[in-house]
Amino acid sequence: MAKFGFHKSTPLFVLLTDFGHRDSYAGTMKGVIYSICENARIVDLTHTVEPQDVIGAAFVLRSSYEYFPPDSIFVCVVDPGVGGKRDIICMKAGGRTFLAPDNGLLSMLEAERKADAIRAVENKELWLDGVSTTFHGRDIFAPVAARLAEGAGIEKVGPRKRTIKALKLPKPVKTTAGTLKGEIVYIDQFGNLITNVGEATLQTNLPQAFEDISVSVAGSKTKGISGSYGDVKEGELVALIGSSGYLEIAANRGSAYKKLGCERGTDVIIKG
Amino acid sequence: MAKFGFHKSTPLFVLLTDFGHRDSYAGTMKGVIYSICENARIVDLTHTVEPQDVIGAAFVLRSSYEYFPPDSIFVCVVDPGVGGKRDIICMKAGGRTFLAPDNGLLSMLEAERKADAIRAVENKELWLDGVSTTFHGRDIFAPVAARLAEGAGIEKVGPRKRTIKALKLPKPVKTTAGTLKGEIVYIDQFGNLITNVGEATLQTNLPQAFEDISVSVAGSKTKGISGSYGDVKEGELVALIGSSGYLEIAANRGSAYKKLGCERGTDVIIKG
Amino acid sequence: MAKFGFHKSTPLFVLLTDFGHRDSYAGTMKGVIYSICENARIVDLTHTVEPQDVIGAAFVLRSSYEYFPPDSIFVCVVDPGVGGKRDIICMKAGGRTFLAPDNGLLSMLEAERKADAIRAVENKELWLDGVSTTFHGRDIFAPVAARLAEGAGIEKVGPRKRTIKALKLPKPVKTTAGTLKGEIVYIDQFGNLITNVGEATLQTNLPQAFEDISVSVAGSKTKGISGSYGDVKEGELVALIGSSGYLEIAANRGSAYKKLGCERGTDVIIKG
Repeated sequence: MAKFGFHKSTPLFVLLTDFGHRDSYAGTMKGVIYSICENARIVDLTHTVEPQDVIGAAFVLRSSYEYFPPDSIFVCVVDPGVGGKRDIICMKAGGRTFLAPDNGLLSMLEAERKADAIRAVENKELWLDGVSTTFHGRDIFAPVAARLAEGAGIEKVGPRKRTIKALKLPKPVKTTAGTLKGEIVYIDQFGNLITNVGEATLQTNLPQAFEDISVSVAGSKTKGISGSYGDVKEGELVALIGSSGYLEIAANRGSAYKKLGCERGTDVIIKG
Repeated sequence: MAKFGFHKSTPLFVLLTDFGHRDSYAGTMKGVIYSICENARIVDLTHTVEPQDVIGAAFVLRSSYEYFPPDSIFVCVVDPGVGGKRDIICMKAGGRTFLAPDNGLLSMLEAERKADAIRAVENKELWLDGVSTTFHGRDIFAPVAARLAEGAGIEKVGPRKRTIKALKLPKPVKTTAGTLKGEIVYIDQFGNLITNVGEATLQTNLPQAFEDISVSVAGSKTKGISGSYGDVKEGELVALIGSSGYLEIAANRGSAYKKLGCERGTDVIIKG
Repeated sequence: MAKFGFHKSTPLFVLLTDFGHRDSYAGTMKGVIYSICENARIVDLTHTVEPQDVIGAAFVLRSSYEYFPPDSIFVCVVDPGVGGKRDIICMKAGGRTFLAPDNGLLSMLEAERKADAIRAVENKELWLDGVSTTFHGRDIFAPVAARLAEGAGIEKVGPRKRTIKALKLPKPVKTTAGTLKGEIVYIDQFGNLITNVGEATLQTNLPQAFEDISVSVAGSKTKGISGSYGDVKEGELVALIGSSGYLEIAANRGSAYKKLGCERGTDVIIKG
């Protein structure tokens, strides 16, 4: 089984794509992985990132990767440039291995966790024969991931790369004394609005108690930053530090997204 | 690996949440489980219960749990009260282990299968460090489940509880001689309308042959209770005992839900 | 564990249904499989084929089965005739095992890969006790698949069958010299329009260079057949040989389906 040297007995693959659930694309990638790596365990992180939404994928990955075992292999295919000139990269960081197109998908993660190694995926010996131009998830990403798990060293996948493409991500700015302007970077399925304002940034810039800070978005304002959804009445807006460690605006037992009708990129004003 | 004593070689976890598939919430729970319990097998029962629909989750669980191996661990997170004062409970019944918020989710199951043990989940030693107020699926449910699988006894999770919260569930009533009034409790993706009238209740109250019983819902009426969808013409309504053992109204090769436009709670009149 | 003789240590089951993700139907099938075959590995090929869309299921299966290990067991339940008189069939082809209703679901696959054995699934010893009329996925397909994996030979499932039902599938036709008329047979989630015109058919009938061939659909026409999506400007239509080996019309970084508003069955005219 182990064609390329030592390997872990039951490697864990984590798939992140925009392939959806209706077609067989994600399932086919698993077929390829199991064909090469019989003892694979495979987790679907998500396959329903909005089509071609690299920023959403980068956010989802950044929020979750640390909860997976340190030797997990992440296979990330949100790849509007498939078949074109973009590189595919293989990055090692914190023990974990990440495969993704070089379109910024790994940059949110790399910004907080320095890469130990970055390679361009170019060695066709690790790919399937007869690579299509439209389904690299099946023909390149899946077999490379499986062969890495079976013991191929990262140096096998291709030449070293020094840098990866970065997303142009908004950062929160201090507009006046005591006011921070951030924005919504992700809206989850519950309609929670997740901002780019991390807990540390918030505390550095606004040293007040959370109850003395207001959060305004799309014409509505919360009183204070709360500890949990249930701190406000049903249906009311609540600001809190969400599970990803960022400021988030929610509606208790409802959808802040539906209530406010805002979008990714909408300003969020935080006042002390 | 086994920190807490003996453990099963490949424990089976069954996940039931309303987290949806777009975000990484369900996937992250699996990361936590695999981080603690390397040999886990994980099944998604569903992650698309309507957001915060505890009754729907209770129904789905009751309809399916018996088809899983007796030592399965069910992790049920439909939890509108997350971060508030509700308990999390761990229940043993029929060999299986169930984790859920104490909001009625387990009550449909408990009504037909007496619990062998009920505990409140309070021992933080089994949780992740730094529990968030918004994502207990990741921070409490997943690690507790994994540690139970790794050999922690149920007495480790927290103190005994005597009772769990019950859902206020409608029961079928006999309105006049020979007439039973039930209601729709679940509508599946095919648009089948599943009622609260079990096969035994039906036979006790209406001893006629199935062909002599009519079922009325939303102004439409079936002739008899049939054996299978194909007993009526394409598109026509058919009443039958569904796969969950309850009376169900369907449309052959169509959707009774779309045809009738009814809702959960709509009355169903059964006449002998 | 092995009740029926020899068995593979970790059999791979591939599920293809129209059960959707909201109800517990697909999950329950997995419970049954694990109850019989503890070491199962299970892949969801898809559960969101359009309800009762046998042609879509046949296409999805044909496009993907070769990417799974040769001893995989495919469990295909798109079954509008459940509970009626249709047979369930078990087919061996190319080492793999396929279970499906005899409604054409396996015919696209069988057309290109001759069956080694076909049996009617009739031996109730391999089924669950108390088979429902509405959920054969749980009561027949899952247990039969698991028992095949546990070592039951295909001759156990039921008597030999000579033929299976075929779908009436359109074939591309040569309308005039240098013109081929095909049609759309599948529209994927990205809105790519996949036709019934295979690469070999195309090259036999239109020996020109790909750049000299135009593809017309729903009033729009592409210039040439391209190598990849990125060969045209963003939003523009592009024709190419897709990952399934068939001619496909796409929109670069967009949806050809939304752009053109066409359907399965829409004509595609290919001119040299």
